[in-house]
Amino acid sequence: MTRYPQVAAFSGDENTIRVVGHRGARGILPENSIVGFDFALSIGVDLLEFDVLLSRDDIPVITHNHEFHGSAVRGADGAFLNGEHPRVASLTMAEIERFDIGRLNADTEYGRRFPDQAQMDGVRVPRLGELLQLVSQPRYAAACLMLELKSDPDLAQDSAVRERIVSVICRDVREAKLADRTLLHSFDWALLAECRRQAPDMPLSFLTQLQENEHDVGEDSSILVTPDFSNPDISVPDEVSKAGGSLWCPHFSELGANDLAQARELGLAVAAWTVNEPDDIEAMIDLRVDAIVTDYPGRVQQRLSERGFRWRR
Amino acid sequence: MTRYPQVAAFSGDENTIRVVGHRGARGILPENSIVGFDFALSIGVDLLEFDVLLSRDDIPVITHNHEFHGSAVRGADGAFLNGEHPRVASLTMAEIERFDIGRLNADTEYGRRFPDQAQMDGVRVPRLGELLQLVSQPRYAAACLMLELKSDPDLAQDSAVRERIVSVICRDVREAKLADRTLLHSFDWALLAECRRQAPDMPLSFLTQLQENEHDVGEDSSILVTPDFSNPDISVPDEVSKAGGSLWCPHFSELGANDLAQARELGLAVAAWTVNEPDDIEAMIDLRVDAIVTDYPGRVQQRLSERGFRWRR
Repeated sequence: MTRYPQVAAFSGDENTIRVVGHRGARGILPENSIVGFDFALSIGVDLLEFDVLLSRDDIPVITHNHEFHGSAVRGADGAFLNGEHPRVASLTMAEIERFDIGRLNADTEYGRRFPDQAQMDGVRVPRLGELLQLVSQPRYAAACLMLELKSDPDLAQDSAVRERIVSVICRDVREAKLADRTLLHSFDWALLAECRRQAPDMPLSFLTQLQENEHDVGEDSSILVTPDFSNPDISVPDEVSKAGGSLWCPHFSELGANDLAQARELGLAVAAWTVNEPDDIEAMIDLRVDAIVTDYPGRVQQRLSERGFRWRR
Repeated sequence: MTRYPQVAAFSGDENTIRVVGHRGARGILPENSIVGFDFALSIGVDLLEFDVLLSRDDIPVITHNHEFHGSAVRGADGAFLNGEHPRVASLTMAEIERFDIGRLNADTEYGRRFPDQAQMDGVRVPRLGELLQLVSQPRYAAACLMLELKSDPDLAQDSAVRERIVSVICRDVREAKLADRTLLHSFDWALLAECRRQAPDMPLSFLTQLQENEHDVGEDSSILVTPDFSNPDISVPDEVSKAGGSLWCPHFSELGANDLAQARELGLAVAAWTVNEPDDIEAMIDLRVDAIVTDYPGRVQQRLSERGFRWRR
């Protein structure tokens, strides 16, 4: 049994497989937006995955890529960014809030990936603090956060940068009194080691992706900051356990029954990402993962429901 | 030009095609639920279609079928209705509020039609008054209502029943001061004639479906209460215009360019229903209908946006 209540919230049982809203509910609403998080919570998806970077003025902001892209970001003039790729780390929060993330650009490959996503105006990149405030509302008392710390591949070797990222983010989470409802989640194992040092009160969730695949077209890759597991003698769950992890989060296409069983023996909960297609959802239910991270939470609820599973206890 | 502001809200122009959320956003959230209406409004879909029946105690309730079915309705025990089909007109509002409409039953054909719909607990059949209250909020000042009056085929010949339905519903709308934001919409032309008599302040919207089709499996048919237009010499837009209509709402599969052009000449706005598949959405954009009624408002927004159309002025 885990000593962390939030790890229990991400753990399944024989009748329960958890649903985690990926960047809120990216298939339905703009990703990493307050309106998307609120939607996921309002349909009974208590577990939210999202990405945090720091602005130039050290404010944790919720956004996935290190640079804003024209695939989903518009400037103050209402037009999708064209040619320029402003770096989040080079922008103040005031500058970041001038961008609009409410629409997808159908002229880009990324912009065509979520054909049902609502197209909105005036949707801002949120601060981490805004999401913490949302889940602090009494109606969302069951909400838990899978807070992904993104590290800039260019600065991944810089321990001062790591210290600052972890310190600023954990300060916000603790001030909101949500340390017992938050997982610290990353591809960057050095960053998670720093989390372990600064925040032993919060459990660690280790993301892995061994190979590039076609699922993430148009997004920053995370391969660069993950350890090299290409040696087949290495057991990934074993490494996660040794590194002090509570969750292991493999890409769904790289998860097999043996690794899952081994993770369970090691006391790890296993959350597979990002599972959107009906056949892939069924395969993860067949495996009995603990949690399914998805852009389409309603779709996963429906598959689970049909097969007699619940997602809340 | 129309004298009704709500007809203008449903009318397109060379850059505008309207999006109407069918039963809220049936592809995404439970149909005819407050959470579904709120979702559609929150993504900038200002126009809502929904169905109104009367309870035994004459309260207008928002639900589609005259009987509750086990495809989407659970009893107080949490189980989908099995065998029994309680009639809405035989239930008091207090009895109606004990049912839960938050989930689809995957064991039924209807329950498999919306595989992305969120599965929720504790979702109640709303009173019309609750929706009127929702759209009275200042943030939804642009919202307009396509209020479908459903008539019971068994009682369609009963003029006293018609009078009562229209009178009770119009009273609620007027009390909420939303007569200038509501269309009275029906398949039943006799009911619309009664609307015209009692409520000349509200415009009429005529639904037509000439033939049964495969799109509406698992739902009450409306063919029985529509006039017989099988004579090819009859022009449907002409009949709508003669009956005092402001909108004509054909099933999308029965709308052609000639009828659309004729409707325009007669000063009618044309809203096609229920348009969900990408190719059908494209076809309605190609035709330049005024409005597209859909279970997937985000999908229609995205197709429109890609082709340079807006849905709000």
